[in-house]
Amino acid sequence: MVSLHPIRGLPLIGAGDPLADLIVERAGEWDGFQPGDVLVVAQKVVSKAEGRVVRLDDVHPSGAARDLARRTEKDERLVELILRESREVLRSRPGLIVVEDRRGLICANAGIDRSNIEQHGRGEEVALLPADPDASARRLRERIGDLTGVEVGIVINDSHGRAFRQGTVGVAIGLAGVPAVWDKRGDPDLTGYVLHATVIGIADEIAAAASLLMGAADEAIPAVIVRGAPVPEGDGNAADLQRPREADLFR
Amino acid sequence: MVSLHPIRGLPLIGAGDPLADLIVERAGEWDGFQPGDVLVVAQKVVSKAEGRVVRLDDVHPSGAARDLARRTEKDERLVELILRESREVLRSRPGLIVVEDRRGLICANAGIDRSNIEQHGRGEEVALLPADPDASARRLRERIGDLTGVEVGIVINDSHGRAFRQGTVGVAIGLAGVPAVWDKRGDPDLTGYVLHATVIGIADEIAAAASLLMGAADEAIPAVIVRGAPVPEGDGNAADLQRPREADLFR
Repeated sequence: MVSLHPIRGLPLIGAGDPLADLIVERAGEWDGFQPGDVLVVAQKVVSKAEGRVVRLDDVHPSGAARDLARRTEKDERLVELILRESREVLRSRPGLIVVEDRRGLICANAGIDRSNIEQHGRGEEVALLPADPDASARRLRERIGDLTGVEVGIVINDSHGRAFRQGTVGVAIGLAGVPAVWDKRGDPDLTGYVLHATVIGIADEIAAAASLLMGAADEAIPAVIVRGAPVPEGDGNAADLQRPREADLFR
Repeated sequence: MVSLHPIRGLPLIGAGDPLADLIVERAGEWDGFQPGDVLVVAQKVVSKAEGRVVRLDDVHPSGAARDLARRTEKDERLVELILRESREVLRSRPGLIVVEDRRGLICANAGIDRSNIEQHGRGEEVALLPADPDASARRLRERIGDLTGVEVGIVINDSHGRAFRQGTVGVAIGLAGVPAVWDKRGDPDLTGYVLHATVIGIADEIAAAASLLMGAADEAIPAVIVRGAPVPEGDGNAADLQRPREADLFR
């Protein structure tokens, strides 16, 4: 059996808050952390704890940003941030900008979103993705290890839209202490036929499972413990989940 | 808490086997079915129970299939089946054919795969997707309701590759008694900012969560009960998860 345990009751997170400590305090509801646990943490609380929040009024859009904002009918300050966070704009249309971001992620709006950012009476703020989500995951893993003596896996997830399919699903944008993919090529299957093309996106499946709890509640669920999942040993990173450009038929 | 319960010990399934009955017998390990449960069933056992298995030696490839097989370095009989099951070939290269299948699914090889099909000493067999996976899901839901008195949600899942990302993840190819997506646009978030673009691919997240158990084991796990997931009322279908061509920036 696999179980998914919501971390409840976290305060609203701000820059410099000790996110790992706050999560560990609340993991007591689920008997703390146990060996084999994977902690999935929502990107937005990681970004906020790391101070990756920008006040839109402080952003001065370039000409390129103003032009793209006009074509996509988006806020030109937001588009300026999207361009700063991106290597390349892959597609755009009114309401949507899909980029390859600085981390190599293909995503809408460079992962920048506007919800759940507190208004301080000083204009709207948005959260950028963590500068290096794998490093963020490693720091969370180390701190939780120091506090609890348990080496948990960490997945930082975010909700992404997909090509071809409707709706967002949780995907892994940073990880530590868990593999990104599970390469089963060469394993025999149950009838002896050798599997020849199965590489499982295990970190993305963990991210999606946790999103079932995160996306739903009226209450904020910024982190979920995934317990009992059959995950092989490994220490992957987000880049392992990014298809190389030359192998991508849809770029 | 959400829990994922594997259905273990199913026999190898063949055409005409009473799949719902066999699953219900084994759900006793998890106290049977309970209101709110979603049963995720692997496409392959549904296909096999429905007799959607083809012996490759019985397939006579057309000229178009032979040509595409040469270019993709695939078995020309398999390619013939892929073409029969498809509306359109979207992309191809050696080792890979991505199609829009007859059901509207964008997937590799029209979802046809070669593993876990028993060899009867009469040549290799492959399983096609169910002819109408939503109808398959409805039949499973009805039969389980008749047997147990509980109306469970059903998701038929399959492992699909993605554009841009490495590794396969479970996605919903048929469903009954659960919504495909959860449209939260217009809901306020925790700071009062109104979410403006959040449609959650809830059935795909359920499918991916179940895949965590299905893809891993040495033992076959062809079905998983997802219990306690916060899923709204609804009765969607697989087409709700397919992005209309005109809204797809990557077609």
